[in-house]
Amino acid sequence: MTRINRRILLASRPEGAVTPASFKLEQAPLDALAEGQFRVRNLYLSIDPYMRGRMNDAKSYAAPLALGEVMIGETAGDVVESKHRDFAVGDKVTGMFGWQDYGTSDGAGVRKIDDTRVPMTAYLGVAGMPGATAWYGLNKIIAPRPGQTVVVSAASGAVGSVVGQLAKLAGCRAVGIAGGEQKCRYVVDELGFDACVDYKAGNLHQDLKNATPDGVDGCFENVGGEALDATLSRMNPFGRIAVCGMIAGYDGQPVPIKQPSIILTMRLLVQGFIVTEHLDLWPEALGTLAALVLEKKLRYRDSVVDGLEHAPEALIGLLQGKNFGKQLVKIA
Amino acid sequence: MTRINRRILLASRPEGAVTPASFKLEQAPLDALAEGQFRVRNLYLSIDPYMRGRMNDAKSYAAPLALGEVMIGETAGDVVESKHRDFAVGDKVTGMFGWQDYGTSDGAGVRKIDDTRVPMTAYLGVAGMPGATAWYGLNKIIAPRPGQTVVVSAASGAVGSVVGQLAKLAGCRAVGIAGGEQKCRYVVDELGFDACVDYKAGNLHQDLKNATPDGVDGCFENVGGEALDATLSRMNPFGRIAVCGMIAGYDGQPVPIKQPSIILTMRLLVQGFIVTEHLDLWPEALGTLAALVLEKKLRYRDSVVDGLEHAPEALIGLLQGKNFGKQLVKIA
Repeated sequence: MTRINRRILLASRPEGAVTPASFKLEQAPLDALAEGQFRVRNLYLSIDPYMRGRMNDAKSYAAPLALGEVMIGETAGDVVESKHRDFAVGDKVTGMFGWQDYGTSDGAGVRKIDDTRVPMTAYLGVAGMPGATAWYGLNKIIAPRPGQTVVVSAASGAVGSVVGQLAKLAGCRAVGIAGGEQKCRYVVDELGFDACVDYKAGNLHQDLKNATPDGVDGCFENVGGEALDATLSRMNPFGRIAVCGMIAGYDGQPVPIKQPSIILTMRLLVQGFIVTEHLDLWPEALGTLAALVLEKKLRYRDSVVDGLEHAPEALIGLLQGKNFGKQLVKIA
Repeated sequence: MTRINRRILLASRPEGAVTPASFKLEQAPLDALAEGQFRVRNLYLSIDPYMRGRMNDAKSYAAPLALGEVMIGETAGDVVESKHRDFAVGDKVTGMFGWQDYGTSDGAGVRKIDDTRVPMTAYLGVAGMPGATAWYGLNKIIAPRPGQTVVVSAASGAVGSVVGQLAKLAGCRAVGIAGGEQKCRYVVDELGFDACVDYKAGNLHQDLKNATPDGVDGCFENVGGEALDATLSRMNPFGRIAVCGMIAGYDGQPVPIKQPSIILTMRLLVQGFIVTEHLDLWPEALGTLAALVLEKKLRYRDSVVDGLEHAPEALIGLLQGKNFGKQLVKIA
């Protein structure tokens, strides 16, 4: 049986903000499986900020995508054909199968998931890479003690929402930064943060000051730019900053840190990290996170766009902060 | 016997660059010693960049100096009177006695020194606080492996000169950044760095690129500003940046980091530190450094201004990069 595979390619590198012109949807029949391979019907595609970086032709932690390559991305789906002894038709998996209908794999980097108790989409979010990112940065870099204050930007997002909830579970004061009153209400009322500052309200520095009366001991940075500047100015001595994302600068000119001397005066630790370089810790992280989801101690929200062809808009919206919770594309 | 003590006070807080108007020289007779005290005739005063920060009324790692207080500073000198059982007349010591002729102490923080084999001035430089600063940042933060590249700004200065020499002794490529051809020649020819980039030559980014063909693994930052930006752009994955000074921003407006996203893309560790918070390591550091001086494996240069009354000019010159080697004031 020959399957037709739709896939979205990187058609051109964005100059500044991403537009639909950077992408091209095409379709082609799939080759038959070779021995040792299996095929996955992608059901959900995860849309994440790191994708923006990979569209540039710049020195970074990963090689840039080549023009004409399928856009990178993690998916969750069903095994629909298999010539691999460890993967059977009907298995549920996640893997880096990209922006397309089907993935073909020899099993490397593919994770089997159990969607009978935790929904499949959670394995792309709270119990997947974004969750592991939050867990790593909070526990391995910030390592907060009870009573300390942790600030996280993009607080309603897939990573930020987990950071704050884990900080609360660790006995900390959790303060979010998010865009808009609705997101901030969600962060406080539904996720249980102690406070959330709306950076769109135009008073970020003062509002963050009010929300962090004892200063800030840990900062989980997803955004950079003004959010980071404001948090820096509130840091306590020996504070830790886990640098996970600089989304503010992804779409064009780099955004400076205005007062780096605070790193010195407050003797801060600033550590950039990429969670996929710490795979040895994923079993611990993902086990903990899935258990917390089951126990209803970790809440999350999905923001689902229907149809592979809408994946470009989903990424563009994410980079503009339009998503609310984990951004996903439902492929099938 | 009543001694007359000259002392230099902080008369006003500088707006921007320091000028002589910030200081006031006055003299007053000294009180008699109390039981348990001793008196030191200060012979040399160390002039260091941190002094600039203490002149501001800003949140920092140390309380600001109050107006009318004696300027802070470390001195080396002779005990000339004593009612303290552990300090005898004739002992040589260093201590935080400030910009004045005499210090009075109960012994807290005072270190006895042996100037028979290592000159007294070295205990204010290579075998003192600046040396310990270099030792700590290089060994405890950068922790370079043989074959790696270490860049240090203000490379001809009291701290930077030790950083590069210790890096060479550790089997690294040592690259300095300094201002002017003469300083750069000194750094390479006399201190033994592999290369030194003259930031005044107007081609810092390209020159640093040429001097670091394998990228940069460790950065010891004394300056900030353009030197840091240029070094950041050369960092290798998992590089370490020890933030020791931000002298570029001491004298006025903060100097931004232009491309902080490199912290993320290269997964850098950036750590601010103050060496006086790691006193437990000083015996190890100072012992090592004094031994290296004795063995002629560590070279240094003093830049001595004669007369306490010239201390303000010495600090102003240091902040403008006019010194060459460790800046000292000979008081007597």
